[in-house]
Amino acid sequence: MATINRNFRKLSAGYLFPEIARRAKTYQAAHPGVVLHKLGIGNTTEPLPPAVLAGLHAKVDGLGHADTYTGYGDEQGDTPLREALSGYYRQFGVEIDPEEFFVSDGAKADAANIQAIFDTGNVVAIQDPAYPVYVDSNVVSGRTGLFNRTLGQYDGFVYLPGTEENGFFPEPPQQKVDLIYLCSPNNPTGAVATHAQLQAFVDYARKHKAVIIFDAAYAEYIGDSNLPRTIYEIPGARECAIEINSFSKFAGFTGVRLGWTIVPKELVAEDSQPGELHTMWFRRQVTFFNGASNIAQAGGIAVLSPTGLSQSRAIIAYYMENARIIRDGLRSVGLTVFGGDNAPYLWVKAPGSMSSWDFFDQLLNQCQVIATPGAGFGAAGEQYIRVSAFGHRGNIEKAVASIKNNLVITEEVLS
Amino acid sequence: MATINRNFRKLSAGYLFPEIARRAKTYQAAHPGVVLHKLGIGNTTEPLPPAVLAGLHAKVDGLGHADTYTGYGDEQGDTPLREALSGYYRQFGVEIDPEEFFVSDGAKADAANIQAIFDTGNVVAIQDPAYPVYVDSNVVSGRTGLFNRTLGQYDGFVYLPGTEENGFFPEPPQQKVDLIYLCSPNNPTGAVATHAQLQAFVDYARKHKAVIIFDAAYAEYIGDSNLPRTIYEIPGARECAIEINSFSKFAGFTGVRLGWTIVPKELVAEDSQPGELHTMWFRRQVTFFNGASNIAQAGGIAVLSPTGLSQSRAIIAYYMENARIIRDGLRSVGLTVFGGDNAPYLWVKAPGSMSSWDFFDQLLNQCQVIATPGAGFGAAGEQYIRVSAFGHRGNIEKAVASIKNNLVITEEVLS
Repeated sequence: MATINRNFRKLSAGYLFPEIARRAKTYQAAHPGVVLHKLGIGNTTEPLPPAVLAGLHAKVDGLGHADTYTGYGDEQGDTPLREALSGYYRQFGVEIDPEEFFVSDGAKADAANIQAIFDTGNVVAIQDPAYPVYVDSNVVSGRTGLFNRTLGQYDGFVYLPGTEENGFFPEPPQQKVDLIYLCSPNNPTGAVATHAQLQAFVDYARKHKAVIIFDAAYAEYIGDSNLPRTIYEIPGARECAIEINSFSKFAGFTGVRLGWTIVPKELVAEDSQPGELHTMWFRRQVTFFNGASNIAQAGGIAVLSPTGLSQSRAIIAYYMENARIIRDGLRSVGLTVFGGDNAPYLWVKAPGSMSSWDFFDQLLNQCQVIATPGAGFGAAGEQYIRVSAFGHRGNIEKAVASIKNNLVITEEVLS
Repeated sequence: MATINRNFRKLSAGYLFPEIARRAKTYQAAHPGVVLHKLGIGNTTEPLPPAVLAGLHAKVDGLGHADTYTGYGDEQGDTPLREALSGYYRQFGVEIDPEEFFVSDGAKADAANIQAIFDTGNVVAIQDPAYPVYVDSNVVSGRTGLFNRTLGQYDGFVYLPGTEENGFFPEPPQQKVDLIYLCSPNNPTGAVATHAQLQAFVDYARKHKAVIIFDAAYAEYIGDSNLPRTIYEIPGARECAIEINSFSKFAGFTGVRLGWTIVPKELVAEDSQPGELHTMWFRRQVTFFNGASNIAQAGGIAVLSPTGLSQSRAIIAYYMENARIIRDGLRSVGLTVFGGDNAPYLWVKAPGSMSSWDFFDQLLNQCQVIATPGAGFGAAGEQYIRVSAFGHRGNIEKAVASIKNNLVITEEVLS
């Protein structure tokens, strides 16, 4: 008699984005012909640049000839790609051996799966707000109790709230925890950790033999050269941190699917042998995964070429100009806006004491703008919405204009 | 203090294929210049056909234009692909709703991950020999005891041996089990279950509320129209079976990466609500996965077009002709050969009382042929090797000729 993994029943509401899609669909059905302005899902919109397209086409051509056709590739990812990634990190003054990279089909899968190499008894600390995948993957794996609807939190997690006071990047916890998820530049707040802030977490992790799971998927959006692009810029991080990254936002690969995870050979847990965590992730990947698409990997190599990098960064600059337009526009109507200077996300405070879903509904109904309710990312997001800078310039401008023209912040809300 | 998932330490030797690669490398280092004939890993070798290449190129072109660029796709897979898959099953007289398909990056990942929606206390039945992924994914998830080196088996699994007597397809177990992994056409034995054999498992599963995980990744190699291509040809299977399939061997997508899993809405476990397992797998996928590459999905749609299907099946016929050449050649030197008539694998008995690794070494040393030791697939494979029909015709012919010319089966071995 098969029985189900009942941890799945602990998952709170449906996944955030389907619920947003549902509300948008309902609105659209009631208002046929009205155009919605999407500032919601962080989904890239700009076409791939020529150097990357050339790399993809060349690989497809290669698959059409017996002497260049390839089937299963190296289990950790194609060697030229891992070597190119090693070179990419060198520009930040960080040495990562090609053997320490594990190429994947994207950061989401790795962020969700990485917990599988740790004991289910481990106590997990989560930034609040956070990308729901860190939370949900640990819930279904049994590291939490039930969802507490009053608190909007799962029993058993240690939440590290990001607030206006701490610049949306928390300090390490007071108590002992075992696994710590950090995301910088942060999704959803757009906050970027400083060297000192990351150093505090690395020091904490080394002291307590905790492991940091560092999601750097938006690192390429950091323009400020004083901010760390990788956790391995922090002394000691190789002993205590796994870094996850992706070509999705870096190079428009949200649909093409390509990412990587670094598990340094020095990484240790309380009860691990030297090198064991690295080997465990290798073993996990060769059992549960069969490599990223060879076409996507060829695209990744093209992204990391000098021309590919320059063309991809031009697209990032385009999205960051979108962010500037949104920030300036929203501030001009009196909204309080965080983030968006070294990240493609803006964290916008709901006026007065409005809830994030109420503000979401107001933006939808008054301005036909779809944002993302902060509450979907955790209790600490309750009074915020996330606005994404991904979009065609014209649409971004229309969305901002619609907010400027139509948003009515009543005295009632503000009082 | 982070602690590791100690179930990983239960995993027996290194994964099969790395060990084969190691022995081949050692031989090659000692015999520089000698060409090895690879009949080992089941890796496709023939170039993709024109219709599929056209589909891939068209999608890459589309990613280069703002009006056709796509980012994240439907979470379950692109609708046109799921509709095409639904049409593909219809040719076997089986109706599967497009909503019941979950497009993935390949059968391996799904075969490894599907156990995550079931309780860790479930008792697992495994065909012996079997694709190691079914075993290893359940070991690291905690459904077994330790590896018993004497038996070559894990404590806690129920092994269902495939033997010469049962045509390498076992009967359902005597005792109650909860999850049952079946693979037909079988990797590694090449055996194909009949309707009656599958009906016996479906009847067993319905009686005991067990769930069958049916791996049909080689279904396209079935030429005999009397054999079932999908478990859903069996009445009652929609209540008790999940089917996993792939474009890897079907269409040479081992490197491109694309597969699918069907979780029928009627599927039930002992403690599940109606439709709950379907919803759980949906939730699992949207949390741990972000869709297959959109380029690969476009390729999959091209495979399922009339021209793509016809061109892909011509390549399958080519591999099956390889299988015939291998079968005839190996039989001509007195070896006993099973499989290879409706599957790309041949299951070859080691002469006399030789072990599979010894026969592997003999083929390597005497004939410079790399096969796959049956023992790598389970204790019941101890006296067999798996020979793969994937390869260029010329190489297959050379490998067979080398076996014919160089293999010496001594009286000593046979006595």
